[in-house]
Amino acid sequence: MTGNLIIQNDIAAAAKVPSFKVNGVSCDVRCKDDDCLDLCLVHSISPCTAAGVFTKNDVQAAPVLLSRKWLASGEAFHGFVCNSGNANACTGDQGLIDAENMALEAIRYTNSSPGSFLVCSTGRIGELLPMDRIIPGIRNCTQNLGNLPEHGERTSRSILTSDTCPKGCLATWEMEGEELSIGGFAKGAGMIEPNMATMLAFLLTDVKIHQELLREVLSEAVNKSFNRITIDGDMSTNDTVLMLANGASGKCISEKTPQDLQLFQEAVGRICLDLAEKIVSDGERITKVVRVEVKSAPDDETAEKVCRSIANSLLVKTSWYGGDPNWGRIVHAAGYAQVGLEMDKVDLYYDDALVLLAGAPQTQNRSSWKTVVNKDRFTIQLNLNLGTGSCTVLSADLTEGYVDFNKSE
Amino acid sequence: MTGNLIIQNDIAAAAKVPSFKVNGVSCDVRCKDDDCLDLCLVHSISPCTAAGVFTKNDVQAAPVLLSRKWLASGEAFHGFVCNSGNANACTGDQGLIDAENMALEAIRYTNSSPGSFLVCSTGRIGELLPMDRIIPGIRNCTQNLGNLPEHGERTSRSILTSDTCPKGCLATWEMEGEELSIGGFAKGAGMIEPNMATMLAFLLTDVKIHQELLREVLSEAVNKSFNRITIDGDMSTNDTVLMLANGASGKCISEKTPQDLQLFQEAVGRICLDLAEKIVSDGERITKVVRVEVKSAPDDETAEKVCRSIANSLLVKTSWYGGDPNWGRIVHAAGYAQVGLEMDKVDLYYDDALVLLAGAPQTQNRSSWKTVVNKDRFTIQLNLNLGTGSCTVLSADLTEGYVDFNKSE
Repeated sequence: MTGNLIIQNDIAAAAKVPSFKVNGVSCDVRCKDDDCLDLCLVHSISPCTAAGVFTKNDVQAAPVLLSRKWLASGEAFHGFVCNSGNANACTGDQGLIDAENMALEAIRYTNSSPGSFLVCSTGRIGELLPMDRIIPGIRNCTQNLGNLPEHGERTSRSILTSDTCPKGCLATWEMEGEELSIGGFAKGAGMIEPNMATMLAFLLTDVKIHQELLREVLSEAVNKSFNRITIDGDMSTNDTVLMLANGASGKCISEKTPQDLQLFQEAVGRICLDLAEKIVSDGERITKVVRVEVKSAPDDETAEKVCRSIANSLLVKTSWYGGDPNWGRIVHAAGYAQVGLEMDKVDLYYDDALVLLAGAPQTQNRSSWKTVVNKDRFTIQLNLNLGTGSCTVLSADLTEGYVDFNKSE
Repeated sequence: MTGNLIIQNDIAAAAKVPSFKVNGVSCDVRCKDDDCLDLCLVHSISPCTAAGVFTKNDVQAAPVLLSRKWLASGEAFHGFVCNSGNANACTGDQGLIDAENMALEAIRYTNSSPGSFLVCSTGRIGELLPMDRIIPGIRNCTQNLGNLPEHGERTSRSILTSDTCPKGCLATWEMEGEELSIGGFAKGAGMIEPNMATMLAFLLTDVKIHQELLREVLSEAVNKSFNRITIDGDMSTNDTVLMLANGASGKCISEKTPQDLQLFQEAVGRICLDLAEKIVSDGERITKVVRVEVKSAPDDETAEKVCRSIANSLLVKTSWYGGDPNWGRIVHAAGYAQVGLEMDKVDLYYDDALVLLAGAPQTQNRSSWKTVVNKDRFTIQLNLNLGTGSCTVLSADLTEGYVDFNKSE
C-alpha cells in the first residue's frame, strides 16, 4: 500500500532519515561559547541527487554562487556544510575562495568525490570568514557524525542566528510496504519575504529521484511556502533551500508512477509549509501571526500583489500589534497595490467576523472584530469579487521590540 | 527685469497672494476643542484656473473623486474647502453626497458659480462626515475670510492631523517690474510614499496661466518632490495637491515666453520641494531625515527602484534609528530591487565618507561612517557605475515611537 503521510514536529529530524549522518559543532564564529553551535555538516555515503532554490537578490553571497554553480554542473552529491554567524556575503574573491575551501575540507574529511559538497552561510554581511576557526570546525564536525537524536538536534541548532528555537519536522509515509521519510530543518527570524529572505532550509530524503524532477518538486513546494511568508519585506543575500535525496530506501519516485509522485510532492510541500510557519512564528520580537487571504481576484498574480501590499504595510502591521481592528488601513493598503480594486465589491472578514460587505462596514460586529484581532493568530480574508484568483501570505505584526532589536547589530 | 526668485518659510503664506482670501475655523471634527482648527476655505473673487494631482490608490476618497471630476470638466474655479479629522473615504454614495454638499455650501456662501469649488478631506477612514458640524463650519469660515497673517496661519493649521507643526512657504519673484507670488501650505505625517500618501498640499498664485499648462507645471513639480519622499511606504486614499492661479497680477505665463515659464516652473518646483522636505522632517516620531541618492544606474527608472528599495527597507530604517553604519543592509536592500546590480562596481558614501569602493568596504573610515549616521540629517549615496540614471528620495528612520504611535488610533 501507499499513503499514510504523517508530519511530526521533530528538531532532530535531520538524523532520522536512513543513511544520512549529521552533526553540529561550535567553532566560535557566531559567539565565543562552546554551547553556541555554529557549524553543521550533513553527509551521505551513497551519492545523492540534489536541488536548490536560492535568493533572487542581485547581491548573492559566495556560498550561494558556489552551490548554484556546483548544482548546475554536478549530479552526485554527498552532503553540505553550513555555518552561522557570518554570511560570507559581499566578501569578493576571497569569499569565493573561502566558500570553496569549506566544501573542499568537507570533501577531504569525508573522503567524498570532488564537487560533491554544497555550502551555506548565514549571519553578518561584509566580513571575511574566520577560516582559522571554520576549518578545524569542519574537521571536528566530520569526526563525530552520527544519527542519534542528539546529532539531529545539534544540527538544527547550529544554523540558527536570531531565532529563539530550532525548527524541524519529519514526514513519513508508506510505499509498497516500505517506510519513506523526509527530514527538514530551517532557520529564519527577520527579513522574511518573497524569495526566502535570511532563511535557510534543508530537506533530506531516502527516496530515489532524478535531479530534474527533484528540482521541480522542490520549486513548487517553495513557491507555496517559503515564498509566501513575510516579516519585514526584506530579502537577504543568502537565502537557500537545499534538498538531498540519497535513494537509500531503494524506492524510486518518477513521472511513471504519478500517484507516488503526488504523495511525495505533498510530503515535500507539507514539510516546507510547516517550516515556513515555524519561521514566521519565530519572527524577531513579533507578538502575532496573521494569515492574509485574498480571494476572488482577477487572477492569482493580482491576488498576490494585494496580499503582499497588505501583509507588508507598516500601518497594517502596527495596527495588528495594537489589537486595533482598523479595516481602513487594510483597504487602503489593498488599494495602493493598484490592481483595479472596486471598493463597492469588497468583502472583508477577520476570522469569521464580517467587517465589510460590498464595501460597507458592518459596525454591528465591532466587538467581534476586536476579539479576533486581539488573538495571537487570526486570518484576514479579503474577497475582491472580481474573478477566481487567490493568494495566501503569512505575516506578522510590527512591534517596538522589532525596532529595538534591529536598530543596531 | 525678470528673476530674483526668493523662497521663504511662511506658515501664513496662503494669505499673502493677492486677491485670495482665506480662513481656518474649528468645527469639532478633529477634536472637541475651539483651539483645534479643522476646516479651511480659500476663496478668490476672480476666477482661477486650477490643477490637481491625486492619489493613485485604487480606493479614492469621495472628495478626491469629486474634485477630479470637476477639475476635468470645469475651467473657472473660485476656491476650495478642506476639513481634517475625517477623510470621507470608504463612505460610499453618502460620502459623495456629503463631499458635494461641502462644495455647494462653500459656493452658496461665497456667491460663486456652480462647480467652482473643490473639496479635500483628511483624517480617519470609513466614517461619515458629521455634516451637522461641517456645514455650520463652512458658513462660519466664509464669514471671516481675510488676508491677514492670522488668516493664513489659521488656514495652514486647520489641515493638520498628526503633524506637529504647520508647514508653509512663499515664493516671490519679479516679472517686468511686477512682483509675482506663490503661497503654499501642506500637511503630512505618516504614510508618505510615492503618490503622496496621506498628504495634502495647496499652492495659490496670482499669475495668469491656462489650465493645461498649469497641470503640466504642477505634475512635473510633484513628481520631483512629493513623489520622492517616503516615511512608511504606504499611500493613502486622500492624497491631493491642488493649485489655483487667479491671474490677479495680470501677468501671463505661457509657452510663448519660455524664460518666464521656466522661472515659474522653478518657483513651483522649489515650493513643492520645500513643503515635501517639511513633511518628511515632521514624519511621525522620526528622529532622522536621510537623503538616499542612487547614481550612475542604467536609467532613471532603475535608479528609482533601487532608491525606494533602500528608502523603504525596515532593516535599513531601523539601523538609521540606531545610528548603526550598516552598509550590508543597504547593499542587500539595493540587491533585492533586482535590477542587475553588480556588487564589484558599487561605490557607497555616507555624506563624504567613503564606505564601499568597487564593492570593497573601506573600513579605515569606520569612525567617519559612525559620525555621519549619528547626525539628524545625512545622505546615503550609492553609485552603481552602470549608466547615467539617477534618483533621490527623502526618507526617515523607523522608530519605536512610530510603532507606538500607530499601533491604534
